[in-house]
Amino acid sequence: MLAEKSIYRYRIEPQDVDFTLRATIPALGGVILNTAGIDAHGKGFGVDALNEENHSWVLSRIAFEFDRRPEQYADYTVATWISDYGRVLSTRNFTLVDSSGVEFGRAVSQWAMIDLATRSAVDLSRVGDAHADAIVDAPSPAEKPRKIRAVVPTQHCEHRVVYSDIDFNRHVNTMRYIEMMLDMLPIDRLTAEVPVRLDVHFLKECRYGQILAIGAEIHDDEALFEISNDEGAVAVRAAIGWR
Amino acid sequence: MLAEKSIYRYRIEPQDVDFTLRATIPALGGVILNTAGIDAHGKGFGVDALNEENHSWVLSRIAFEFDRRPEQYADYTVATWISDYGRVLSTRNFTLVDSSGVEFGRAVSQWAMIDLATRSAVDLSRVGDAHADAIVDAPSPAEKPRKIRAVVPTQHCEHRVVYSDIDFNRHVNTMRYIEMMLDMLPIDRLTAEVPVRLDVHFLKECRYGQILAIGAEIHDDEALFEISNDEGAVAVRAAIGWR
Repeated sequence: MLAEKSIYRYRIEPQDVDFTLRATIPALGGVILNTAGIDAHGKGFGVDALNEENHSWVLSRIAFEFDRRPEQYADYTVATWISDYGRVLSTRNFTLVDSSGVEFGRAVSQWAMIDLATRSAVDLSRVGDAHADAIVDAPSPAEKPRKIRAVVPTQHCEHRVVYSDIDFNRHVNTMRYIEMMLDMLPIDRLTAEVPVRLDVHFLKECRYGQILAIGAEIHDDEALFEISNDEGAVAVRAAIGWR
Repeated sequence: MLAEKSIYRYRIEPQDVDFTLRATIPALGGVILNTAGIDAHGKGFGVDALNEENHSWVLSRIAFEFDRRPEQYADYTVATWISDYGRVLSTRNFTLVDSSGVEFGRAVSQWAMIDLATRSAVDLSRVGDAHADAIVDAPSPAEKPRKIRAVVPTQHCEHRVVYSDIDFNRHVNTMRYIEMMLDMLPIDRLTAEVPVRLDVHFLKECRYGQILAIGAEIHDDEALFEISNDEGAVAVRAAIGWR
């Protein structure tokens, strides 16, 4: 039996919108990541199942594209599927479709499985048949996440990692990194009604109590970001582009 | 016809839990506040309906009690009802019940309706029959939110209000205030398995770009908090107590 895309139904809730009454990029990104977790859990290879073998999923890279940001109370669906996996990375895809059937967003994510004791990557054949059986024969809906070149920040800010920033692994939550970076942009960029693509590359995990340095290099049609920990190591790089 | 409590079904999702794999206080608080918005919207007196007359709901005070924090993937319900209203404040109540029928949390909130042009309170008879017809003849499930006495902070931090902090009204989101305050506590207080009560009193709205000063006065069995804006005016006071 061939696996099929899984489809989850959502609605843009009041807590998802900004003052334009449209969903924010972090809210849509959060729904996409939560859908990944729920889908893996439902199929038997979620973080909870992996933890029993002292393994976990770690997001390596993700690219989001949003053609527009839907309005408060709009119904939409998120389809998700794994298109392929190699020895180290599993590729999970997403499409977001409005109630008229029009696709308004998509994402491609690449996940590694790590051993929680050694923090090193585990061969994905170890995930077992549930993961292999979940592969759907459909290509990724967008270009895979890009490698981001060195960033030369012209703006800087600092952030101490607090309880509200961390996830069940005691690391900074993915969406918090994205918020820290986007919050450095002028507010009219964040609320502009133009198609946007966001590529994020995760290099190192940040922990409770660390002081993070966030740098931004802002151009007319794109912005680059870099988050470093208090040892100077780069933890996250990202690029956002507007069309 | 007598109005009845409305009941909403939820599940503790992975994004709601901390490293103890139990729901955080801000996650449960967020669900409670979102339930208020959805219930008012469904009954015809939500923020969207009020905005058409240039009015809005503003949260004045809220008290939360959590006997325990449920585990990831636990199903639960939130019941909500308005028990009474005066000229200025409407009282909305909540109870949280687990899948065995045991109540594990509750909240009492007091809301004012404001005129968005003048930012002053509007007589609640202006909300109309939908609100009056929604009154349920059942008492609040906990002591009403307490007035919080002057706070004498011994710890301080600062926060610049960014895009991710603000809501559809361009004011700091209620849960962000709560996170800013709780994040000043030692992490073992936040993850302790003891009943907790949190009272929050909102005095003034904070806006994008303001630099907020957050102060905490931490004792053995309680902590008091105060958030001030960059003009020195107190915006929020809160108290958290552990049993």
